[in-house]
Amino acid sequence: MLHDDSDHGSADTEPRAQDQRRTQILDAARACFAVSGFHGASMHQICAEAKMSPGALYRYFPSKDAIIEAIADDERGKASAVMANFRREGPLVDRIVGCALDYLSRMESRHSGALMVEICSESLRNSAIGERFHCTELDVRNELLEAVRVAQRTGEIPASVDAEMAILMLFSVTDGLVMRMGLEPALTPASAEPFYRRVVAALLGLSVPPQP
Amino acid sequence: MLHDDSDHGSADTEPRAQDQRRTQILDAARACFAVSGFHGASMHQICAEAKMSPGALYRYFPSKDAIIEAIADDERGKASAVMANFRREGPLVDRIVGCALDYLSRMESRHSGALMVEICSESLRNSAIGERFHCTELDVRNELLEAVRVAQRTGEIPASVDAEMAILMLFSVTDGLVMRMGLEPALTPASAEPFYRRVVAALLGLSVPPQP
Repeated sequence: MLHDDSDHGSADTEPRAQDQRRTQILDAARACFAVSGFHGASMHQICAEAKMSPGALYRYFPSKDAIIEAIADDERGKASAVMANFRREGPLVDRIVGCALDYLSRMESRHSGALMVEICSESLRNSAIGERFHCTELDVRNELLEAVRVAQRTGEIPASVDAEMAILMLFSVTDGLVMRMGLEPALTPASAEPFYRRVVAALLGLSVPPQP
Repeated sequence: MLHDDSDHGSADTEPRAQDQRRTQILDAARACFAVSGFHGASMHQICAEAKMSPGALYRYFPSKDAIIEAIADDERGKASAVMANFRREGPLVDRIVGCALDYLSRMESRHSGALMVEICSESLRNSAIGERFHCTELDVRNELLEAVRVAQRTGEIPASVDAEMAILMLFSVTDGLVMRMGLEPALTPASAEPFYRRVVAALLGLSVPPQP
């Protein structure tokens, strides 16, 4: 390959080249936010990480805030993709484990873990940035909660289970895993799966057999 | 009460008054670190939060770094207290749940959750601050791991359980809970306990009965 078209003149105005540039900037921004935090990272750093001039970068995003908004949009998109997986037939535990593993695989990088921690830290500070990411989570949470309630009506899940608490616990467990995956190479979606499956069943009030 | 002795002259040199001042500074620092991060918080902010002059504060801690070191020491002390609880007789699940609840109760404040997230974020960045807190965790982890292995030898826990993975999962779950407790008022050590107990049993490969 002699050269990459997206780096040359008018090709940059083509929709596909524009998308590539946008992704390149957002990847660079994620890396910078993961390392230096939303507040600590500067547009200058993001330009350097993306190997772009400020002029080129500002054509895509007028401010750091616009970049954060775009990342929050991407997270909403990812959440939709993960939840599409959830809306199939089958036992509730399988559906939850399936979409959680999909989510964990998407978060399986040091940057994703650090970015999640950074988002959580913003939420704990009740900031506008935290708020932006929180609404995506609420959508996912409400859909899972409704699914647990349906399963309680059909008798799949014991009616005595506090569905809201079970979902809160499920989110705690999954967040904790994302955070740890960034720290512990031995912890991967694959190595966590058998444990996670037992945990989900236990949280939903189902019987969990002893390990053979 | 007409006045508080600790605020007046020579009383400040008494060991008890000194301890009170030290605690007052560390509490203020925790609040500042939770809100602004280890890097973002300044000694000026900590002085303001502690309602002390820089001169008074510097008599106790010469630098922000010295304050962080003292907080790490305090965490080590807390971990020792929590683990003292662990070293009693009884089923392993009860001992783990008992010390985890003790730990969660100590972490049950918005500041503790935010500070934990901040520490985790430093660990993800492989920083010196992260390293300082990490050694305390390793001590706790090794003690729990050894207890699981002993329980496997006596047959209390199935020998087929991957003890290291079970402990990693346990830490993920517990960190996740601390993080969420700061965000969700409904999530408390008491409301989490019955779920947490089922999760611990599931992670250790024990049978978990269906919820009645």
